[in-house]
Amino acid sequence: MNANPATPLLDTVSTPEDLRKLKPAQLRQLADELRAEMISAVGQTGGHLGSGLGVVELTTAIHYVFDTPADRLIWDVGHQAYPHKILTGRRDRIRTLRQGGGLSGFTKRSESEYDPFGTAHSSTSISAALGFAMANKIKGQPGRGIAVIGDGAMSAGMAYEAMNNARDAGNRLIVILNDNDMSIAPPVGGLSAYLARLVSSGRFLGLRELARKFARRLPRPLHVAAKKTDEFARGMAMGGTLFEELGFYYVGPIDGHDLDALVPVLENVRDAGEGPILVHVVTQKGKGYGPAEEAADKYHGVQTFNVVTGEQAKAPAGPPSYTGVFAKALTAEALADPTICAITAAMPSGTGLDKFAAQFPERSFDVGIAEQHAVTFAAGLAAQGMRPFCAIYSTFLQRAFDQVVHDVAIQNLPVRFAIDRAGLVGADGATHAGSFDVTYLATLPNMVVMAAADEVELVHMVHTAAQYDAGPIAFRYPRGNGIGLDLPETPLALEIGKGRVVREGSKVAILSLGTRLGEALKAADQLDARGLSTTVADLRFVKPLDTDLIRRLMLSHEVIVTVEEGSIGGLGAHVLTMASDEGLTDAGLKIRTMRLPDVFQDHDKPEAQYDEAGLNAPQIVDTVLKALRHNSAGVNEARA
Amino acid sequence: MNANPATPLLDTVSTPEDLRKLKPAQLRQLADELRAEMISAVGQTGGHLGSGLGVVELTTAIHYVFDTPADRLIWDVGHQAYPHKILTGRRDRIRTLRQGGGLSGFTKRSESEYDPFGTAHSSTSISAALGFAMANKIKGQPGRGIAVIGDGAMSAGMAYEAMNNARDAGNRLIVILNDNDMSIAPPVGGLSAYLARLVSSGRFLGLRELARKFARRLPRPLHVAAKKTDEFARGMAMGGTLFEELGFYYVGPIDGHDLDALVPVLENVRDAGEGPILVHVVTQKGKGYGPAEEAADKYHGVQTFNVVTGEQAKAPAGPPSYTGVFAKALTAEALADPTICAITAAMPSGTGLDKFAAQFPERSFDVGIAEQHAVTFAAGLAAQGMRPFCAIYSTFLQRAFDQVVHDVAIQNLPVRFAIDRAGLVGADGATHAGSFDVTYLATLPNMVVMAAADEVELVHMVHTAAQYDAGPIAFRYPRGNGIGLDLPETPLALEIGKGRVVREGSKVAILSLGTRLGEALKAADQLDARGLSTTVADLRFVKPLDTDLIRRLMLSHEVIVTVEEGSIGGLGAHVLTMASDEGLTDAGLKIRTMRLPDVFQDHDKPEAQYDEAGLNAPQIVDTVLKALRHNSAGVNEARA
Repeated sequence: MNANPATPLLDTVSTPEDLRKLKPAQLRQLADELRAEMISAVGQTGGHLGSGLGVVELTTAIHYVFDTPADRLIWDVGHQAYPHKILTGRRDRIRTLRQGGGLSGFTKRSESEYDPFGTAHSSTSISAALGFAMANKIKGQPGRGIAVIGDGAMSAGMAYEAMNNARDAGNRLIVILNDNDMSIAPPVGGLSAYLARLVSSGRFLGLRELARKFARRLPRPLHVAAKKTDEFARGMAMGGTLFEELGFYYVGPIDGHDLDALVPVLENVRDAGEGPILVHVVTQKGKGYGPAEEAADKYHGVQTFNVVTGEQAKAPAGPPSYTGVFAKALTAEALADPTICAITAAMPSGTGLDKFAAQFPERSFDVGIAEQHAVTFAAGLAAQGMRPFCAIYSTFLQRAFDQVVHDVAIQNLPVRFAIDRAGLVGADGATHAGSFDVTYLATLPNMVVMAAADEVELVHMVHTAAQYDAGPIAFRYPRGNGIGLDLPETPLALEIGKGRVVREGSKVAILSLGTRLGEALKAADQLDARGLSTTVADLRFVKPLDTDLIRRLMLSHEVIVTVEEGSIGGLGAHVLTMASDEGLTDAGLKIRTMRLPDVFQDHDKPEAQYDEAGLNAPQIVDTVLKALRHNSAGVNEARA
Repeated sequence: MNANPATPLLDTVSTPEDLRKLKPAQLRQLADELRAEMISAVGQTGGHLGSGLGVVELTTAIHYVFDTPADRLIWDVGHQAYPHKILTGRRDRIRTLRQGGGLSGFTKRSESEYDPFGTAHSSTSISAALGFAMANKIKGQPGRGIAVIGDGAMSAGMAYEAMNNARDAGNRLIVILNDNDMSIAPPVGGLSAYLARLVSSGRFLGLRELARKFARRLPRPLHVAAKKTDEFARGMAMGGTLFEELGFYYVGPIDGHDLDALVPVLENVRDAGEGPILVHVVTQKGKGYGPAEEAADKYHGVQTFNVVTGEQAKAPAGPPSYTGVFAKALTAEALADPTICAITAAMPSGTGLDKFAAQFPERSFDVGIAEQHAVTFAAGLAAQGMRPFCAIYSTFLQRAFDQVVHDVAIQNLPVRFAIDRAGLVGADGATHAGSFDVTYLATLPNMVVMAAADEVELVHMVHTAAQYDAGPIAFRYPRGNGIGLDLPETPLALEIGKGRVVREGSKVAILSLGTRLGEALKAADQLDARGLSTTVADLRFVKPLDTDLIRRLMLSHEVIVTVEEGSIGGLGAHVLTMASDEGLTDAGLKIRTMRLPDVFQDHDKPEAQYDEAGLNAPQIVDTVLKALRHNSAGVNEARA
């Protein structure tokens, strides 16, 4: 167990109001204590560490200079907001981060008035900040929108869309570009190269007006730089920075760990007269904690760890993860087929494609946080005869829904969607749950939609998708480890639209899609033990449905229950629709659909989440028993 | 009837191969004939005119210089591709544009090998072109990706995402920025202002290498400009154009109607050695046709018209459009409530918000083609106490699905979604159909989803949404005119989750959502005439469902039919799920769901499309009769 650090100054600060009573000279100590406290807390809970460490000084300076919460501060993505949480009244709960019932790992409106906007998906902050700013402008009330956005998040189109609309907000909008040259993975793309050139250019200030003030008030070396400003300011009409070209005043780059620079620059920005301002701050991910600074991933996401040594708790040993199984299977396919290629949107390690990329660099594409582009790019690859696998988490594929519809499904192009993190995801909570993909994909003509029941099935589905050239095909699989099956040496090409009966019974039929299969089988054992002979089918496909199998089971069983890890509109809806299309409900059909509940579930352990969702074996048994007991006499009488 | 123009040279050209046999000096005549032919054709069919007129020379020059179809040419958006269609083997069908069974109004893969990618939604072209380019690179085969993209389309995030990823394609990627300072509406945002500065700067070339070649081969004034290139090229490492900063070589601006400039510049671009190139071409929308040049909208979309006078056929007189009714109702609400504001994504006239903006400019936002930003911006406005109405076509709201989920629904923010063009849309075809919104919205917790059955209902729903502050709320309504009802002076606040019975019967119940209500009522009359007493309910809400009403109707009627203008997963699925949740199917329930078929339907007249979809009165009657006749004895026997 790590001892909590001594934090005498931080102990006097529970809100930004307390912070603003400190003298500037005290901020360094405060930041040091804040950093120590954060390291200690994450050591106990695990979570996102590197990003928060990089913004300790920035967090301190922003709350010191600006009038939060009236000035609306939005962290993009919220996993860098742990220091912010400590400074905004949540220090007493900071050691509950990401635990069931504890603080969220992201900003969350319901937690604090200092969290005006929940940010768990990337690149939303400028749009939201602009909304706050314009609302205040319309209402004639004070209050800025302040977005703190990483360079990785800037690769997303929506950040650019927001910047393109910033002008009207005037000085009510402040964008702080937190440039650590790294999001989760090393940066990609033209923008990143551009930022690196900006930083290395030694050019400090691009804004003539601010420069005049700065020349009076700023410490060196900004003072020196300010003298050069006029020379650069001429570039603003033409050939200024990219941000100036979009209508921002650009200030920077600034050392984001130097409070003596940060505070006066932010004060000047606060008092500047006109126009939206972009402050380019350079930080170091993992700053101030040796083990994080030295690690390749800067301790982006960590298990609990020993603060002194930095040694992380080992994740419990277990079978390979679904992600790992996918990556291995895809790599095997690519060995045999030179047209297979893979696309990730800034998640090379999260999707396992880093391993694919190591072996096939020329067929691997990390497009940055750019899911829209990823999908249409894949469509272009497919139209030119490649076999692209687009590996995107379920929740992030929502970003590319129109591209799936318009560029892939309507054109019936054979893009393969590898949908990781399908279903509930645990500590990341509602914002990262993969709840909707079956519904939003299976409603589309031309789509084939599969869900893997276990890791062996996943290997088969990778192979099936590789073989399938007739149109788009998607397969989903959950976060976490497989169930420990031996992987097949020779994967099968599954017959499209055909499920399998895993267990034969006669009275109850459970139709499962995806990894609830294990719970369905457990439930079947318990039902059998009660004398209720139970069939379990793994449908494999929600689209096209195995109508032959489903019809047969409906006609030969007394109760039918569907089980899926998705919201309404998915498997259950498709099975019910088929049944009513065929008139199978006409003479009576005891059918129940088990699905995710109609709420956004908070973060917790996945098992607890599935229990809360009612999708574990006991609840399946309960559903069957209730259906059997359900007296429909009342229905008949009412109808007679 | 307009006479077809004389086109002696064009008559000799049916493919780009023919075109490439011409001498450069002949291209001017060819372009003139191509323009005349296009004007004549669109005069007879109606359609998109202004965009195509602006790219006659560009179309001619591109096909003359590049090796289409091996070089993959992608028009963004495809409605500028009419001249392209004429030059690529489809002239004989050009007078069938947008007619049932005729040519599509956009590019379409199934029409021609010269249409490598369908482009009906904006801003997809660079991603797709990059896909083609990279596929060719991987395969080691020749062939470029060439994207022609308007300045309006450049405001979308996905264009930026694609540009950010362009570097790897090298000289296989060419982006031609067709800058007419106008997409459908006047341009908005920082990018547009920037492009205007670029054009007015008199700066022609930004690329040192090309400049050397150009100095040898180019006509004046490009030759002169090239001499200045070195001076500008220094800007490339820092302070180049926005495009250079993202990794492109920037060439331009160039007069897009001057074939003597276009052809040699494109030849040089074609032969350039390295790096993706962006050619900035300035064109005039409506060019070469007086009435279009003079019109404010440059004849963006037209009815059939008299070629000599430019006079357009009057659209058949009829009741006000749903769009107009929405705009009027929202304006009335905004008069009474200063927190109401409105957001459009580059569709001010299409959504009717131009009228709202005229009255409330400070509460009206046109964000450009930027649906992602539009929705999160609205979420920010709502979080700061405004009542934002986000008016977006159903098909374009797909672009913002993740923002609806993550920024609006999870945070339960009261953003109002006014979903125009819901259901089938006629001549724009599958790419513009609003088929999926009910499915993808009603699956989300916290969402309220309504559909207007007629224009009176739409007025009520605007008012209901304005009043509803508890969370997000959406209402959908179709393209086209209302049914001619008098609009209410005082709109009602509908009770959330409650439908209405429009017609009482006893044997058959039709549950309608949206404007199929008229067909449902027609069907009911026909059923009554056959002695089948029919209830018709307008459910108004698909979420929350009126479970009391639906249960009552299920218990008291022999056949239940749901009717909706949406794909599987919508109303029918929600009604079936509720019925099975409650065990209402256990003892037998004759229920059928009528919905859009599981295909992407081609363009046609809306009535014909609904007939093809099977959602008109005769098909409703037929569904009821079949259900009544359906013998479920076999089902019972099999199950016994």
